[in-house]
Amino acid sequence: MVNVMSTAEHHKILFEPIAIGPKTLRNRFYNVPHGTAYGTLRPGTWAAYRAVRAEGGWAAVSTEFSSVGPSSDEWPLHSSDFWDEEDACRHRLMVDSVHDHGALASIELHHGGAQALRRLSREPALSASGLSSEVPPPSYPPETPKTMTLDDIERVQRSFVNAAVRARDVGYDIVDVLAGYGYLFAQFLSPFHNHRTDRYGGSLENRARFWLETLSQVRGAVGADCAVATRLSIETQGPWGHSIDDSVALVRMGDPLVDLWDLNFGSSLDWETDISPSRLFPEGRNLERIGRVRRATEKPVVGVSRLTSPDLMAQAVRSGLIDIVGSARQSIADPFFPTKVQEGRTEDIRECMGINYCISSLDRGNLACAQNATAGEEFRRGWHPERFEPLTNPEVNVLVVGAGPAGMEAAIGLARRGAEMVHLVDATEHLGGHLRPVAGLSGMREWTRFIDHRQIQIDKLPNLQFIPSTRLDATDVRNYGASHVVVATGARWLRTGATPGTHAPLAGLVEDADWVYTPEQLIVEDQRPAEGSHITVYDTEGYYMGAGLAQLLADEGYEVAVVTPHVQVAAEADMTLESPTIRAALHRSGVVVHRNISLTATHRRRVVGLGEFDEPFSLETDALVLVTMRAPVDKLYQELISDREALADSEIQAVHCVGDALSPRAMAEAMFDGHRLAREFESPDPAIAHAYKREPLRLTLQGYRQR
Amino acid sequence: MVNVMSTAEHHKILFEPIAIGPKTLRNRFYNVPHGTAYGTLRPGTWAAYRAVRAEGGWAAVSTEFSSVGPSSDEWPLHSSDFWDEEDACRHRLMVDSVHDHGALASIELHHGGAQALRRLSREPALSASGLSSEVPPPSYPPETPKTMTLDDIERVQRSFVNAAVRARDVGYDIVDVLAGYGYLFAQFLSPFHNHRTDRYGGSLENRARFWLETLSQVRGAVGADCAVATRLSIETQGPWGHSIDDSVALVRMGDPLVDLWDLNFGSSLDWETDISPSRLFPEGRNLERIGRVRRATEKPVVGVSRLTSPDLMAQAVRSGLIDIVGSARQSIADPFFPTKVQEGRTEDIRECMGINYCISSLDRGNLACAQNATAGEEFRRGWHPERFEPLTNPEVNVLVVGAGPAGMEAAIGLARRGAEMVHLVDATEHLGGHLRPVAGLSGMREWTRFIDHRQIQIDKLPNLQFIPSTRLDATDVRNYGASHVVVATGARWLRTGATPGTHAPLAGLVEDADWVYTPEQLIVEDQRPAEGSHITVYDTEGYYMGAGLAQLLADEGYEVAVVTPHVQVAAEADMTLESPTIRAALHRSGVVVHRNISLTATHRRRVVGLGEFDEPFSLETDALVLVTMRAPVDKLYQELISDREALADSEIQAVHCVGDALSPRAMAEAMFDGHRLAREFESPDPAIAHAYKREPLRLTLQGYRQR
Repeated sequence: MVNVMSTAEHHKILFEPIAIGPKTLRNRFYNVPHGTAYGTLRPGTWAAYRAVRAEGGWAAVSTEFSSVGPSSDEWPLHSSDFWDEEDACRHRLMVDSVHDHGALASIELHHGGAQALRRLSREPALSASGLSSEVPPPSYPPETPKTMTLDDIERVQRSFVNAAVRARDVGYDIVDVLAGYGYLFAQFLSPFHNHRTDRYGGSLENRARFWLETLSQVRGAVGADCAVATRLSIETQGPWGHSIDDSVALVRMGDPLVDLWDLNFGSSLDWETDISPSRLFPEGRNLERIGRVRRATEKPVVGVSRLTSPDLMAQAVRSGLIDIVGSARQSIADPFFPTKVQEGRTEDIRECMGINYCISSLDRGNLACAQNATAGEEFRRGWHPERFEPLTNPEVNVLVVGAGPAGMEAAIGLARRGAEMVHLVDATEHLGGHLRPVAGLSGMREWTRFIDHRQIQIDKLPNLQFIPSTRLDATDVRNYGASHVVVATGARWLRTGATPGTHAPLAGLVEDADWVYTPEQLIVEDQRPAEGSHITVYDTEGYYMGAGLAQLLADEGYEVAVVTPHVQVAAEADMTLESPTIRAALHRSGVVVHRNISLTATHRRRVVGLGEFDEPFSLETDALVLVTMRAPVDKLYQELISDREALADSEIQAVHCVGDALSPRAMAEAMFDGHRLAREFESPDPAIAHAYKREPLRLTLQGYRQR
Repeated sequence: MVNVMSTAEHHKILFEPIAIGPKTLRNRFYNVPHGTAYGTLRPGTWAAYRAVRAEGGWAAVSTEFSSVGPSSDEWPLHSSDFWDEEDACRHRLMVDSVHDHGALASIELHHGGAQALRRLSREPALSASGLSSEVPPPSYPPETPKTMTLDDIERVQRSFVNAAVRARDVGYDIVDVLAGYGYLFAQFLSPFHNHRTDRYGGSLENRARFWLETLSQVRGAVGADCAVATRLSIETQGPWGHSIDDSVALVRMGDPLVDLWDLNFGSSLDWETDISPSRLFPEGRNLERIGRVRRATEKPVVGVSRLTSPDLMAQAVRSGLIDIVGSARQSIADPFFPTKVQEGRTEDIRECMGINYCISSLDRGNLACAQNATAGEEFRRGWHPERFEPLTNPEVNVLVVGAGPAGMEAAIGLARRGAEMVHLVDATEHLGGHLRPVAGLSGMREWTRFIDHRQIQIDKLPNLQFIPSTRLDATDVRNYGASHVVVATGARWLRTGATPGTHAPLAGLVEDADWVYTPEQLIVEDQRPAEGSHITVYDTEGYYMGAGLAQLLADEGYEVAVVTPHVQVAAEADMTLESPTIRAALHRSGVVVHRNISLTATHRRRVVGLGEFDEPFSLETDALVLVTMRAPVDKLYQELISDREALADSEIQAVHCVGDALSPRAMAEAMFDGHRLAREFESPDPAIAHAYKREPLRLTLQGYRQR
């Protein structure tokens, strides 16, 4: 793609190179450490993912947490372990791939201390003072870590130095010692974990000693060849109680030892302040605090604050709050962010929504993104975020029915591949499908970025036309003149009261009862119970909808209760770090939550159910909102494929079904489905995904059979 | 090891060979499918683990769930995937290793259906009728699976046939089609998931069709070469509602198609009925029900029922309840179980305790065992469950102080390695340390198997002497005449009220307050509050102790409340499948549970705290039991190592500290620590674990760099 280079004047500051010790960043975009769950266990996926960020213009690309040895064995979390030569071989692949695209490669050296998992090494956990991890069971098993002896401290320091030397030898440009996020060095820094009475405990100077000594040793070993950085969480909530003032003092102490400060927030107990969901607080909220710390240092500072706006980034650099823009999530959503800013194509940026599908998918074993279908697919499926293979036969007229996430994504992909014409038709007047009303729920405004980005692309693509306010039935579709049809008609919420736990209608529920509501009735059709009603939301789904409707109705002045069979309301939002915000807001709004309750029947103005131990539950209510389970809206698709004769008589060569219309899932996966269809449109059966590339690790059979 | 063969007469039936289709089992011990989390991702660990079970005498050794293709991609669960040639290579290693020891190799072919994770394949979940998985979020994300078309059914059947052929070609003797545990075929079998109206839904015959057709196709493809088996869960609780009568009918239908029935229980919602913790019900409880099903078949039946007694096993075979003894957990605890029965050495069996550390560790990414330190370490550390390398210098007199799990295990290991003399000294009159009083808690009787096994071994080992009722101080130890000292003095519960969440004493708590109790005061010293007292158990640990004490006190007639900062009481027991039993028992006993509450202060007869949203909490109470955090009892060790001069003047060459005295952990890990010390006793620094063998997978760099 050839582009006229025309960086906006006020963004040019973002493209000024900056020295960090012996190295120079080509611009101010820094892809900070963040997990992928690919790690060294999936070196191909990992290297290709990182390389595309380098290609997209980031000046530095970092690994995730790279464990320095068995006492911080983090299996099964798929760290990018960096213990030995076999690991080094995998890292070299990544580093070379990043260097190929002119970026610096950084490694984040990690030790988990009292939080290390040690499932394979089975060594005792190491800690400052033998105090247990604050992460509750079953997330972390109850145990008391070992109090580190002076020998232990020296041994861990040697691990860091050895890893740093190995990193230098592999070609890393930057060695970043992790001292934040509540892991080992942070545990020593904090009086919550550090009760030592020797020279490593007590005053802030003493608590910092372990970290500073390690930095000094790392610098001594590799400082001439590599930039030395350290990642510090400058503020943490809860028992850690680490303040900005502490951080200012720490930065002053460490300043001679580092070439770059990598600043972030939080610990394992308040991750949401760092990987903040958009519903928690706005973009840039942490910048002022980073700025306070920056005034204490003479070294460059890279800081994160869920930044997605180039204007805000440039302003933050210009005003001296940060020197370098740190980003994890925006780099996932758009690897080509820096290039697009540089080329003056800011309208093409896929802006991160801050909905944290990334963190949920990461914790489920594979990083994915709700904006960018290609994240993590660079190696496995050979997908590039900015390049599409042209269709072999572009003479196709594709009709996409339904302009929700899957439909939009399929239509754009096909248009990019050069389809002669793509019509994207929706029964409503808007792009976005269910997403538009959903984004009206409290705290979810930024979900519209999904639509905004695609709206702009659709407007730009001459071979893609959005046709609003047009409801097509099967006959309409057959007569449309399309050569190919993609049905992306989405899903609807059940109104029967059937739940994942019952699969059967709720006893006593009368069809069309006027006191029972689905989410669509409330947020699409804007129906409401009478003012002052008591409303019960029955949430057996557990993501944003049940809690979101409860919040909406409470905000409107209704008396609201949530009943859920789960242990917590919005249990799925635990995965996206949104649940603390959601639950606190419900509590503040006076919403009563009944947990562990499964409804068994309903009567006019009453629901009844059973508790955890089958104890009876009963609640008077004026209205019932059912957030139970979604079903595909696939009538059109079924009609099209079942009347084979009529289809054969039309010009249609193929009919496909994608997204929620096939299987209602997370938005990210529905979008992925549409994207995949576009990429694999010309395969013999596009309904079946191509086999993806698995990591070509080969057994070295010698060494296995001999014992 | 040479042994006189002398199988007990009443056990001989267990060693009669039995034909299953074209194959013959050498005896009646069948190592049924069970997860390891090693899978094909760690082929060395996996093959060596399975091979040792073959060596120990099991007639057949099975894989865990082996996914047949991407629509059942189970990453990150580390299934033993069986999709392609690369997988086949890894399987061949395992099969050959099992064959080396004369056992048959079996593969369990798996499809998860509506429960498949699909994190990497990102395909829609497949299901009978588009009904969501009953597993709640966040364990499973909320989504609605795709309803399988007839094409989908055929495609999945082809995957099974292809996998079966590949299995035959790799050398598998038995192909076991998984139709239980709530996965794909079970979903079709159950009217809970199957609402179809075509020939695959409706009557039991119709619901069975998908499964039976698949069995028939698999039999047609490989039945001449392999035995065909199928795993059926013959009874499930909850909404599945699958009864023994259904199973009898199903077995009749499937009988012509299989050579072996592999019968078990439960689904994802009631796993504890299959992998039943010993606290739920006694050994053999399911045998009668398996026997009912067996009467419906002419084919051999392998069944599981947490069997550990050879007498009960022989009786079950003799009385016709089962033909073959199925075992997962007992094979983990003692791979040489069959050999020991055959050699008349039943007293040497390490009996499974049914505490399900295996399932918790498996779910945390690496199967381990609380009885057998070598489980999973066969490849990584080269440990054999029955063989110990003799000491290079056996002229050592080892004093082990503390006869808890770590101390017993270290002492036995050293004695087995031929140490001239090992003295195992304890301050109490019993072996077992904290384990003995713990086993007195409700439902925990079988934990004593840990002690019983070691007691027998200690009695047998002439160079190991247990010396009870002897409390040694540092001077005693130095004067003992030992060349080496192992301190294994365990841990104690804090009495300060400090918790993992506070790391600080509870405000207002008076030292030695007579109304405050630690677990030791209650179950070791048998102290009790006055009759009729209201007792509050503050449980910030979350495993068995808090709930166990609450149960004990309630059973004794006290009014008991549990306060916990966790979302659930006994949250850690979610990992061991014990929590449903524990919570139901507390509920039945009238114990009041206050969840999400952190205590902030205590006053005489009152505790106060804060809830999830900092709402105030207050509770009147006559007594407070603190189950908060454990600290090592390491005074002896610290005294010994800190007085270097006195130590140098003694005959002691080295002092080691193991188990809870180093870092209070799960019993399994404390035991492992003692075991490791014995195995690595002569290394330069036994405190530091030897580097273990990592899987020697090598990068094939070609294919990585070219894109």
